[in-house]
Amino acid sequence: MSPKEEAPAAAATEAPKMAPQQQQEAAPVKTHIPTSKYSKRVVLKTLFSREDRGIGLSGERIVIGGWVKSSKENRMPIFRTFLKLFGVGTHAEKDSAGGLTYRAQHPVMSTVFLQISDGSCIDSLQVVVDSTLAPPGQILLSGTCILVEGVIQRPSTGGKHSIEVKAEKVLHLGVVEDHEKYPLSKKRLPLHTLRDWAHFRPRTTTVASITRIRHSLTHATHNFFQNNGFLYVQVPVITTTDSEGLSNKFNVTTLLGKTITEEPSNKPTSVTKQVSGVSLESIKASLKEKSNQVEELKRTDSNREALLAAIQDLKKTNELASQLEAKEKKEKEKATALVKPDKLDFTDDFFSCQAFLTVSGRLHLESYACALGNVYSFGPRFKAQTSHSTRHVSEMWMVEAEMAFAELEEAMGCATDLLKHLCKWVLEKCNEDMKFVLKRVDQSIVGRLQSVVSTNFEKLPYCKAIDILKQAKEQKFDMNVEWGVPLTEEHESYLADEIFKKPVIIYDYPKEVKPFYVRLNDDGKTVAAFDVIVPKVGAVIRGSQNEERVKGLSTRIKELGLSSEQYEWYLDLRRNGTAKHAGFSLTFDLIVLLATGISDIRDVVPFPRSYGKISN
Amino acid sequence: MSPKEEAPAAAATEAPKMAPQQQQEAAPVKTHIPTSKYSKRVVLKTLFSREDRGIGLSGERIVIGGWVKSSKENRMPIFRTFLKLFGVGTHAEKDSAGGLTYRAQHPVMSTVFLQISDGSCIDSLQVVVDSTLAPPGQILLSGTCILVEGVIQRPSTGGKHSIEVKAEKVLHLGVVEDHEKYPLSKKRLPLHTLRDWAHFRPRTTTVASITRIRHSLTHATHNFFQNNGFLYVQVPVITTTDSEGLSNKFNVTTLLGKTITEEPSNKPTSVTKQVSGVSLESIKASLKEKSNQVEELKRTDSNREALLAAIQDLKKTNELASQLEAKEKKEKEKATALVKPDKLDFTDDFFSCQAFLTVSGRLHLESYACALGNVYSFGPRFKAQTSHSTRHVSEMWMVEAEMAFAELEEAMGCATDLLKHLCKWVLEKCNEDMKFVLKRVDQSIVGRLQSVVSTNFEKLPYCKAIDILKQAKEQKFDMNVEWGVPLTEEHESYLADEIFKKPVIIYDYPKEVKPFYVRLNDDGKTVAAFDVIVPKVGAVIRGSQNEERVKGLSTRIKELGLSSEQYEWYLDLRRNGTAKHAGFSLTFDLIVLLATGISDIRDVVPFPRSYGKISN
Repeated sequence: MSPKEEAPAAAATEAPKMAPQQQQEAAPVKTHIPTSKYSKRVVLKTLFSREDRGIGLSGERIVIGGWVKSSKENRMPIFRTFLKLFGVGTHAEKDSAGGLTYRAQHPVMSTVFLQISDGSCIDSLQVVVDSTLAPPGQILLSGTCILVEGVIQRPSTGGKHSIEVKAEKVLHLGVVEDHEKYPLSKKRLPLHTLRDWAHFRPRTTTVASITRIRHSLTHATHNFFQNNGFLYVQVPVITTTDSEGLSNKFNVTTLLGKTITEEPSNKPTSVTKQVSGVSLESIKASLKEKSNQVEELKRTDSNREALLAAIQDLKKTNELASQLEAKEKKEKEKATALVKPDKLDFTDDFFSCQAFLTVSGRLHLESYACALGNVYSFGPRFKAQTSHSTRHVSEMWMVEAEMAFAELEEAMGCATDLLKHLCKWVLEKCNEDMKFVLKRVDQSIVGRLQSVVSTNFEKLPYCKAIDILKQAKEQKFDMNVEWGVPLTEEHESYLADEIFKKPVIIYDYPKEVKPFYVRLNDDGKTVAAFDVIVPKVGAVIRGSQNEERVKGLSTRIKELGLSSEQYEWYLDLRRNGTAKHAGFSLTFDLIVLLATGISDIRDVVPFPRSYGKISN
Repeated sequence: MSPKEEAPAAAATEAPKMAPQQQQEAAPVKTHIPTSKYSKRVVLKTLFSREDRGIGLSGERIVIGGWVKSSKENRMPIFRTFLKLFGVGTHAEKDSAGGLTYRAQHPVMSTVFLQISDGSCIDSLQVVVDSTLAPPGQILLSGTCILVEGVIQRPSTGGKHSIEVKAEKVLHLGVVEDHEKYPLSKKRLPLHTLRDWAHFRPRTTTVASITRIRHSLTHATHNFFQNNGFLYVQVPVITTTDSEGLSNKFNVTTLLGKTITEEPSNKPTSVTKQVSGVSLESIKASLKEKSNQVEELKRTDSNREALLAAIQDLKKTNELASQLEAKEKKEKEKATALVKPDKLDFTDDFFSCQAFLTVSGRLHLESYACALGNVYSFGPRFKAQTSHSTRHVSEMWMVEAEMAFAELEEAMGCATDLLKHLCKWVLEKCNEDMKFVLKRVDQSIVGRLQSVVSTNFEKLPYCKAIDILKQAKEQKFDMNVEWGVPLTEEHESYLADEIFKKPVIIYDYPKEVKPFYVRLNDDGKTVAAFDVIVPKVGAVIRGSQNEERVKGLSTRIKELGLSSEQYEWYLDLRRNGTAKHAGFSLTFDLIVLLATGISDIRDVVPFPRSYGKISN
């Protein structure tokens, strides 16, 4: 859809849907320019996406809102100021109530030229504000929010702008209280400095562009799966299943908020001691007494019935004692539960058991694939990784797909198609933002994305990858290359960036380096896993055909020493109508890196979280 | 797009994209029926969504896969069995390698009729399997997974089916190992029983239908916002900001896994005592000694330099002592941190501070709205609510929207449009599934959805709602109605179900019953919040215009005794270029309830989590 077609189409379809009341409110100004349906203004994209870049709208009245990116002030000669003060040449003071009109406080009048941006597109609009409308000292500061009513005109100052808006009324003004404290007052801050201001950085051109590209990629993802008949399934974030057998997981708990020491003090110090009105000590004493009694009765060979009764009594007391002892032991364990992690007791926790933030949704997705065929999921996944990396944060968005009646080859095909689709989408739909990225971030970005779209990915088994890495005599790796080692970022980068210079799919990994659920190949050593490695960004997709044979799966669970109990439901899927199936996870945040050429993942995630770093 | 158009279009666009290798694999059977791109089969929807329900495809070879929903066996007369055993009238045994062919183990041959479903649509397909192809005892069990190659034909048995597939080769068989243990062996299990089998229940017709409707509603949600110029923003799940000032939040921590008691034993018992080789006790002793010395020097009026040196020395020792004391105090506090929750110490936690699962993404979304205009978010939100409810689980998916330069009225307008859009979408796009829901779940469902689409919602301020509730003499409420009380589900239901019999929007609530961030109205008592209440389902949307004035906002934070520190970034948004803005949260899971007529939210959430309940 070309921008030219977009605007009139939107206008045509939106208008009839509006309730009469809304319509009245959404169009406070007489104009045929389509206003943003739910805010009283025209978004800049509506102007700048026209082929004439708004020129044909000259003379139209419009409400426009946004944040000041830069500004300048032109002071008027005293003589013009004098005329203005007496209302000649301005109609601002004729405005009725509703618009905020200011009388300039200094005798010298001025005109302020603001470049404002509203985030709807990369362009900013020049807004001309006379000092009679708002104090220049306030609106000149970058970051100021302003909503004005005015008239579109050809730029009074010439220059590169196609149009400007001459303000006639200021409808809202959100000032910058303290220029010194506003972080974006400085121009062109580096991205890593902006990270400390996650709540302000979308106001910068770069982060706004990244956000729009990210938005478009989300749309592209859903579009791909919708077009290919996949059903969307929302897999859980809180889970008891450790889908990768990893140790670096976040616990989800309400225990920390609980009054652990108070609990015992609410209850009697040792609850069990008071159970049935007797303490363990007194029971133990009576137990000894009764035992002596029985011995005595036995020895004296007295009345048989009395002996049996005594034995019975002894038995009961014995039972009671061991019950009490067990209870007391449990209480003690509970009390020390939180401080002795090897005995963590989660019966008091919210779910009555230990719960984590999910690392991957693929296992849950499988259960839906084994009922509904092709399914996908798109949501946040979590790893409590303490190492720092430019390609990893603690909370990442992942796209996961799972396909019944599919094998490794199909999963690789689907992953390849998705990746190509995403790159193509960005090139086709994010024209303006990609121009900016090309200019300011990465001059090779368009070429790289085009190459992902058009080249055939290199496909090679792990063993071949190892051979190539071994032959790399001139290249020193931090980690030695041997069959059986996991490939590091360094190895992957060497293969994709140096050797093949295009995306590489590596498959058939040794079983030791992949999760327990991956299907064992006939050689008994490798598994049907694959990774898609893209130059400069690394492994953006990891996938596999999963083990559909219950025996093989439970063997792997045992071999790895995982608790088979938590995987019972997962094994159940194999015991009842198992199907061959395959799938993959795509790290969405890495795709945004790929599409924008940004080098640190924390600059493309809206609110990044990492070890020791969380600020809102 | 009509189903008729869908299939050929898909075929036309899919074919050229395939790599040569894939193409070969994806089409193992010669047929012009479009196969599922990433699994070696034709999905049932492709057959049944044709206007002729597949009849025109009679005679075509096809691969089809799915799970057995029901079955029956027709034993053949001995004489036909005899012919079969010698290969007359069957070509199963002529098959080359690749297909699994079984020779029946009992002399009496039979034909098995399977109703299989693959989840792509509501229809199931009749597959006819000769006992020479697979042991009837295995494939007859419901839940069995089967992938067959066969020929489409008109039903041999007559009946309601349009077509059936006569199997010629069984490509995969996933048996049900233990019929007794397979939970779906019983027919028509009630939904609440199915909850214990979240991993199997999508195989039931009802849960499969719910899943497809849920999928379609997700698509509809994105579609609405895309069409209205909203940008999608992924707000964080892990947060330090308590967006509603609630106490029932989940903690996200890695502390529980840490060896808390071991830590002190690794370190010296009291670390500080050994710092710089001196213990606090010895320092204190030397402090006293030195102090005496100084006094002595002063008293004896001796050498001034010696006195100054001694004073200097005393000062230093004093400083050291207070440093050590402070350190020791901190250590002690740390050691008791986890067991004394009023002093919880999170410096050792993953983020070095307390972190929660987010309750709402609206505050984070605001920062993007105040830069990019109209934004939305769609993701999981969490409440550790211990009460049981049919409309609440601990993990729910929410759609949140935030709009700059918008006020209460626009937010209500947008919420209304979204709700109508979703209901309309389901009625238009989920035809087959809605027919099933209408028949089996709720006979009034279509009428109710149509009424949401076509009626004007009732809009009334809270005070008017209270007046109406007060006048309800015949109705007894558990909670008394007075101006200032929060409305309960019971009140809301009375208004929407009994009085207005259509969706009701209540607005201008007393400030006490709404979160701190809602904008205070001019009366100083009410706030610009609104709820959209739908008959039978309750409040599906809660929205508000948020306070853009920094003073009002920080006053509310103080009044409610919230920690202002965690809201600094949020207040910052008001200090720098604040804009009027409004938005809302829609509880997506409740929309699925609304669309399906199901009464318990746990039946529409794929893997529901609630107090004490989590199973995978």
